[in-house]
Amino acid sequence: MNVLLVFAHPEPLSLAASLRDVAIGELQAEGHEVRVSDLYAMRWKPEADRSDFPLLAPEQRLKVAAASGQGFAAGAMTDDVKTEQDKLDWADAVILQFPLWWYSMPAILKGWIDRVYAYGFAYGVGEHSDRHWGDRFGEGRFVGKRAMLIVTAGGWKEHYSARGINGPIDDLLFPINHGILYYPGFDVLPPFVAYRVDRLDDRGFATLGDALKERMRTLGTTDPIAYRRQNGGDYEIPSLMLRPELASEGASGFGLHLRDGGPAASFPFEGASLKSSSNS
Amino acid sequence: MNVLLVFAHPEPLSLAASLRDVAIGELQAEGHEVRVSDLYAMRWKPEADRSDFPLLAPEQRLKVAAASGQGFAAGAMTDDVKTEQDKLDWADAVILQFPLWWYSMPAILKGWIDRVYAYGFAYGVGEHSDRHWGDRFGEGRFVGKRAMLIVTAGGWKEHYSARGINGPIDDLLFPINHGILYYPGFDVLPPFVAYRVDRLDDRGFATLGDALKERMRTLGTTDPIAYRRQNGGDYEIPSLMLRPELASEGASGFGLHLRDGGPAASFPFEGASLKSSSNS
Repeated sequence: MNVLLVFAHPEPLSLAASLRDVAIGELQAEGHEVRVSDLYAMRWKPEADRSDFPLLAPEQRLKVAAASGQGFAAGAMTDDVKTEQDKLDWADAVILQFPLWWYSMPAILKGWIDRVYAYGFAYGVGEHSDRHWGDRFGEGRFVGKRAMLIVTAGGWKEHYSARGINGPIDDLLFPINHGILYYPGFDVLPPFVAYRVDRLDDRGFATLGDALKERMRTLGTTDPIAYRRQNGGDYEIPSLMLRPELASEGASGFGLHLRDGGPAASFPFEGASLKSSSNS
Repeated sequence: MNVLLVFAHPEPLSLAASLRDVAIGELQAEGHEVRVSDLYAMRWKPEADRSDFPLLAPEQRLKVAAASGQGFAAGAMTDDVKTEQDKLDWADAVILQFPLWWYSMPAILKGWIDRVYAYGFAYGVGEHSDRHWGDRFGEGRFVGKRAMLIVTAGGWKEHYSARGINGPIDDLLFPINHGILYYPGFDVLPPFVAYRVDRLDDRGFATLGDALKERMRTLGTTDPIAYRRQNGGDYEIPSLMLRPELASEGASGFGLHLRDGGPAASFPFEGASLKSSSNS
């Protein structure tokens, strides 16, 4: 496979960078071709602004989606953005690796998403009408490709558990896994999350590295998170609300958007599961 | 009150900027003093990197928390960061206003958090031991201050509802409201969220502006979101997991961290509520 690893840590000697190199080494040993976007090393420009849209006249009001769509359709994005878009098209699998800063990704990586995910490329794809709300959440440009997160956190695993004070890690990462990766069509694998990374000794790092190698070896075979497809029959259109018969009335939260106990993913969707989806 | 409004939209002629001016006008009419950090206009540097830490020697490995703590303790942060920290200390209420890009804040605002929220300032505050895991989630530097989000979204309200495909807006904003604002001690007010902002006509904007004015008039009196205090008795220490007797076993998700139906906030905490906290 072609694998793109997008890396967002400022320190080349960090534990995160060592983990990255473990991942790259294992992927290459498996015969994959790996490209790395090391955002700090590339001096990636994080902020989306009017300089991203060469076609926009100086007196014109910037509407980001419109300018992005115009620029992408005309092949008139900036070179740094085009290069990253080409990498995404090239990749069969995409890995985003970052330290968890304030319960999300560092600004530089958010800015990679904000700028590279152009209208017509990652959103605004497919028919948009009252019958079909775009090709997204299971369809879109990246359908057939895989994606996963590698996250390093300073905190304890318990603090990110189902009842931990930070909130469950899967819920904290939902806006990324579902909103950023599943949205344009990726099959999203469960994240690899390392906790208490500031306290790891050599032995701890070796154990962590072994676990990461295993995830890299199974990159092509691990079951993706079973998100429901937008256009698979589970959602009413155009309200995009989960059909009333799916998931019990009391259920709530992000878990609703998982095919809990439903049939394996198939598309076109063969029929909605009536099985209740618990959020627990 | 002293109000700091942090604004993150690249277009001065945007609807977001108009809303910002409505908010500022109403706050000033109420007699509040308002300062604005317009991040794009200030050309705010989004990425946290080693140039943020003048005390760090060139050959020294950057560990962000350590460098941040060292810099803050020595008064050796960069001037742009110090200025924003002073504004936060000055403010009685802080408003973060941003367009929802990919289910979160734009990179430039994330970079304001990443850089201004220094160790010793917004985290790493108070005793850290197996008995007391820092002054945070209800305690910390900003205790007694209020904070709220003003969010503009292109999508439909239904798509962000309890059963909407994007996930509930309150859950999408939890990493910000709870993880970024409640963490260092702010009382967090319910967010003001405007939907379908690209489709608003003048009348729609007037209605929206009136609603925002009402929120600005009640900035000092609106009940904050009833998050549970870390050190209020609801969490086991040091695991920081919600006590087993709080919230039913099947409950899950971010809603666990709300004092649902519990007593009004009081601190020091007078005793844990045994009332079951439903997540629905």
